[in-house]
Amino acid sequence: MIQAKAYAAQTPESDLAPWNFERRDVGNHDVQFDILYCGVCHSDLHQIKNEWFPGIFPMVPGHEIVGKVSKVGPHVKKYKVGDLVGVGCLVDSCRSCDNCKDGLEQYCTNGHSQTYNGTEQDHKTPTYGGYSNTIVVNEDFVLKISEKLNLAAVAPLLCAGITTYSPLKYWKVGKGHKLAVVGLGGLGHMAVKFGVSFGAEVTVLSTSAAKEADAKALGAHHFVVTKDEAQFKAQMGTFDFILDTVSAKHDINDYLGLLKTNGVMICVGVPSEPSPIAAFSIIGGRKSLAGSSIGGLPETQEMLDYCAEHNIVSDIEIIDIRDITPSYERMIKGDVKYRFVIDMATL
Amino acid sequence: MIQAKAYAAQTPESDLAPWNFERRDVGNHDVQFDILYCGVCHSDLHQIKNEWFPGIFPMVPGHEIVGKVSKVGPHVKKYKVGDLVGVGCLVDSCRSCDNCKDGLEQYCTNGHSQTYNGTEQDHKTPTYGGYSNTIVVNEDFVLKISEKLNLAAVAPLLCAGITTYSPLKYWKVGKGHKLAVVGLGGLGHMAVKFGVSFGAEVTVLSTSAAKEADAKALGAHHFVVTKDEAQFKAQMGTFDFILDTVSAKHDINDYLGLLKTNGVMICVGVPSEPSPIAAFSIIGGRKSLAGSSIGGLPETQEMLDYCAEHNIVSDIEIIDIRDITPSYERMIKGDVKYRFVIDMATL
Repeated sequence: MIQAKAYAAQTPESDLAPWNFERRDVGNHDVQFDILYCGVCHSDLHQIKNEWFPGIFPMVPGHEIVGKVSKVGPHVKKYKVGDLVGVGCLVDSCRSCDNCKDGLEQYCTNGHSQTYNGTEQDHKTPTYGGYSNTIVVNEDFVLKISEKLNLAAVAPLLCAGITTYSPLKYWKVGKGHKLAVVGLGGLGHMAVKFGVSFGAEVTVLSTSAAKEADAKALGAHHFVVTKDEAQFKAQMGTFDFILDTVSAKHDINDYLGLLKTNGVMICVGVPSEPSPIAAFSIIGGRKSLAGSSIGGLPETQEMLDYCAEHNIVSDIEIIDIRDITPSYERMIKGDVKYRFVIDMATL
Repeated sequence: MIQAKAYAAQTPESDLAPWNFERRDVGNHDVQFDILYCGVCHSDLHQIKNEWFPGIFPMVPGHEIVGKVSKVGPHVKKYKVGDLVGVGCLVDSCRSCDNCKDGLEQYCTNGHSQTYNGTEQDHKTPTYGGYSNTIVVNEDFVLKISEKLNLAAVAPLLCAGITTYSPLKYWKVGKGHKLAVVGLGGLGHMAVKFGVSFGAEVTVLSTSAAKEADAKALGAHHFVVTKDEAQFKAQMGTFDFILDTVSAKHDINDYLGLLKTNGVMICVGVPSEPSPIAAFSIIGGRKSLAGSSIGGLPETQEMLDYCAEHNIVSDIEIIDIRDITPSYERMIKGDVKYRFVIDMATL
């Protein structure tokens, strides 16, 4: 076994703190890499606090992981020592269901292996995430990272990036479309970058008037303060698509009213409580409320390659892992531009 | 003005009763026809009881109207005296918005004119529906009815028919698709007929085991009693589309779980209360919850022509208009196979 260091939550009540544990040895098809940076996702906090479902403790969060290969198994074909690589939200899946065969491992019907707070495909052995110095992952779930981009700023692409890229591609959002992005945080700022890059006319809908300059700097064409009722109502019936990145409670019906006929509102945030949806909100105008979860391995690689080609990365603030708890507090307040990334050298 | 007879609700608290009123004279572009049959839609009851929104009283319900032309205005081109015609849920719209130009008058952004419990395009003059002996409608909102079909059984096509035909066409439901129809009532039994006709593998999901033989006789390939938890759970992740025709309260999340990855659940029923939707119900499997409302004029004519070609009509029970109140009581209990149609000769 491999000795590993990490920050872990021992219980849902405890703050993250240093923890030593063991990773599996590098198997025939495994890649081990030194973790250089790991993004801080809002779902890390949801999960260590048991806000979505009862978690597996101790829990080492982190699923926006980038680093440099330190060892490869004898049958590994795609990677060699020294390569820049990444791991996102998945470290394995059944590989035999229709979704896995279609490269939609995130929807594996037999249950994929989450990078942390999950289990390996034996459905027993817990997985531990990227707030750690090293990780061992089957090469099929490891992604190639271009040398062209700022590595720390690539990390959030593995979750915030693919979570917004995938639905925009699936619903073919692009030129001629008016796209609203709800919430300008880790996901929202990536949605703006991709939406603009794909040719859509992008409007940011935010509760915070203070974010207008940033939204425009990120490429958004318009900005609407959702708390301003007149501004909000002026947008009724104007959007082809809404990408909703907010996981705090909000009234979805209000936003459905902003869609054109045949419009689609795509939720990628996960509020803890169900949202009440009025039938008339979707029946009037043949509207759809859809959901989307991260992306499969082929599409995640496609997204990383697209980002390298188009020079797209996340806007980040690099933090010391010892500051993780105050950083979570800032994240809750939306006080981050726009993703914290842990410099793993501080571990 | 034209003297007309009808059954009307004088208030939300009163039963329907005979009422005499005036229709407008036949204008240049108007068609007047003798109403021979009018279908009884669940929405008639919702509206006279103010269950959706405050109504306009006195209210003459009925928007599944068929009859024979008795008079045409001097500029009418499409119809002549003696033609069989129908009117559905709409009698006018703005005709200038993008949706109207696209033949989606049901989504008119300036507000279409409902056949009853609405107003003409002056947004003042109330409209009165088909529980009546005669009606005057602009020819553009009058539909041609084939002589080939049983006229009384055609009436429900004008609402129950188009409401289920339109979403199945829009989402291209057909061969190779597994379609579930929730609820076997007026809408549900038409959804089964169209789904089967379009080539889909159709499963009826019903709370009532007693409806299995009927479902199969209507062409459904499978039948699931939703109250039987084991039967219900066996369907998890198996449907490409679900057409939900139920307007009683039910848990949408349960049904979303029955969809395959990328599946779409289309709601055409209108529960009075909003339905709570959990984010994980749509995010897991990239699912959509969509709505659809009746159909535009071109598509309604297309549907009627399709029905004439494929010999599709509604299964009906003809009633005397004096039995309307007990018929509503039977409808609430689901005790109708599968649509009441008023023989207007009984008025």
